[in-house]
Amino acid sequence: LQILPVILSGGAGTRLWPLSTQHQPKQFSSLVGTRTMLQMTAERTLNSAFAGPFVVGNRGHADLIEAQLGEVAASPSLLILEPFGRNTAAAIALAALHAPDELLLIMPSDHVIEDATAFMDAVISASPTAQNGWLVTFGVRPTRAETGFGYIRKGERLIGPAYKVDRFVEKPVADVAKVLASDGHHFWNGGIFLFRGRTYLKALSEHAPELHRAVLRAFEQGQQSGIRFSPDAEAFAAIPSISVDYAVMEKATNVAVVPLDVDWSDVGSWEALHELLDNDERGNASIGETTLIDCRGSLVRSDGPMVVAIGVDDLVIVATKEAILVVPKADSQRVKEATELLSKQN
Amino acid sequence: LQILPVILSGGAGTRLWPLSTQHQPKQFSSLVGTRTMLQMTAERTLNSAFAGPFVVGNRGHADLIEAQLGEVAASPSLLILEPFGRNTAAAIALAALHAPDELLLIMPSDHVIEDATAFMDAVISASPTAQNGWLVTFGVRPTRAETGFGYIRKGERLIGPAYKVDRFVEKPVADVAKVLASDGHHFWNGGIFLFRGRTYLKALSEHAPELHRAVLRAFEQGQQSGIRFSPDAEAFAAIPSISVDYAVMEKATNVAVVPLDVDWSDVGSWEALHELLDNDERGNASIGETTLIDCRGSLVRSDGPMVVAIGVDDLVIVATKEAILVVPKADSQRVKEATELLSKQN
Repeated sequence: LQILPVILSGGAGTRLWPLSTQHQPKQFSSLVGTRTMLQMTAERTLNSAFAGPFVVGNRGHADLIEAQLGEVAASPSLLILEPFGRNTAAAIALAALHAPDELLLIMPSDHVIEDATAFMDAVISASPTAQNGWLVTFGVRPTRAETGFGYIRKGERLIGPAYKVDRFVEKPVADVAKVLASDGHHFWNGGIFLFRGRTYLKALSEHAPELHRAVLRAFEQGQQSGIRFSPDAEAFAAIPSISVDYAVMEKATNVAVVPLDVDWSDVGSWEALHELLDNDERGNASIGETTLIDCRGSLVRSDGPMVVAIGVDDLVIVATKEAILVVPKADSQRVKEATELLSKQN
Repeated sequence: LQILPVILSGGAGTRLWPLSTQHQPKQFSSLVGTRTMLQMTAERTLNSAFAGPFVVGNRGHADLIEAQLGEVAASPSLLILEPFGRNTAAAIALAALHAPDELLLIMPSDHVIEDATAFMDAVISASPTAQNGWLVTFGVRPTRAETGFGYIRKGERLIGPAYKVDRFVEKPVADVAKVLASDGHHFWNGGIFLFRGRTYLKALSEHAPELHRAVLRAFEQGQQSGIRFSPDAEAFAAIPSISVDYAVMEKATNVAVVPLDVDWSDVGSWEALHELLDNDERGNASIGETTLIDCRGSLVRSDGPMVVAIGVDDLVIVATKEAILVVPKADSQRVKEATELLSKQN
């Protein structure tokens, strides 16, 4: 039995603005190394244990997705093209409706996992649990008291490496994060899942029946053309925008967690990206046409005009042809303030 | 008698890189207000006391000079086009050879003088001294212990507002600058001069005879076409590259200084420019498409992609379509290190 990868590529994250924009979200950019995040995600399952992937993304990115995956010989077996984003519960449901009998490996398209072999081993070790009707989440072992992620508390041991999930914990405050990160009972929720299509659809119909009905309608009235499937836009618009965590995982009782012992990052800020990059002896990471003179601890990237930085410390400088961001590394999550302001101005 | 302005526009200063480049030096850019520095320089003498200006510049900038001066109704009466820069002694000599009997007002094209009326008054008050065969320099009254300028020590009083120059003082160290700036005997050397063409040529032939001969050859073998004069390139190449200060002023005995009580700046660094600009209540100056969030004391300018700065203090950020500079304001003179490095790399 092959596992069917489902790559969620509908996100339009702006936490890495100006590189990541609505027009070209970060999964389509090379952030670490030469491959794009989407390509690295697909390559992680280029193996006989896996079928050709489903990709769920925005219909405006259809050609881009096919082109990027073609480059790494990971062409999708199905491209589900949303007219706009309706969050992960709906995206996964559309994939599950196309393959109710398959074992689906749900993967965000914009995360970094350093060790593909360890990842694959964890997925394969989790497949008996998923086959047995569990909704399997993968829990990343915490390496710091991160307040930006949700946590998963493990309960009793199931078969193999799996534990029953005791409960999901919302993004914690710093004091709580310290406990969760170190007590040995909690994992980071990395948004990676393994389950049979039917298992997910059944849970969805139980815990989010309205959403289930709406997705079913968009699916049934949708159009297939070659490998491209377009849900009916009007029906799609009626789908509630809810994450898979809220809609299903936090409510279902048949949720298991399998530990994932890999270096994982959601690359959720420029600071997080800096940690993934090779640094020079002064702690600088520079990408593209850049010149750094007497700088320390800085991330300098250009996909546009050449950047020259002199004597700056712990600064993020990112340039594209359209926009330039300059922000202290520790404040890099404040990019959100800029993108909100700019979208108001437009 | 009209005074003939001679605007020196041959400089290719890179202290305001990346806005100022060899291709488009800062005199052709709007740094303060909407006029370019060249336009503001020409407008300073748009008055019946002055004839249409001579402009000495690089031949690659001929059309640009004519276009910019045409826009402010200050078209040059003569355009002296150098094949490459040979410093100010030669540039002024070429102008003087064209107008030996005129009273020449030599002005750099890239300085800011806030009060044009006070400037004009000082020039006119100095003209009897210049008519009497003195090489008149204008001395800017120091407002701070600047180490980046040369100083002029005044001697005995001459007619009108003029003093004989006692001596020129090279750019001083900080302790010396403190004394010079406050003792009441010294002025900043602003590189602005008034003299008869013949007075200058005579001094040049005495104190820099080789240079005088070489310029004369380039002049005699030059080509005139309409208002454009091109010195002979081969003869021009043989001219020593020396400033008017070294070649003449520091050696001649008939040098006078007339005080110039105006706000003057050579805009010699991004920090100097910042001081000339209107700041917001947090001390930021921003020009072009820029968004500043929680910044203080910073200069942000874009002639290229939009710049978004978040939470930065006392930083200079300058963007063009070709290059982006990020440097702490206090280090802004280090731009030189970058331009030297870049020219080595090319």
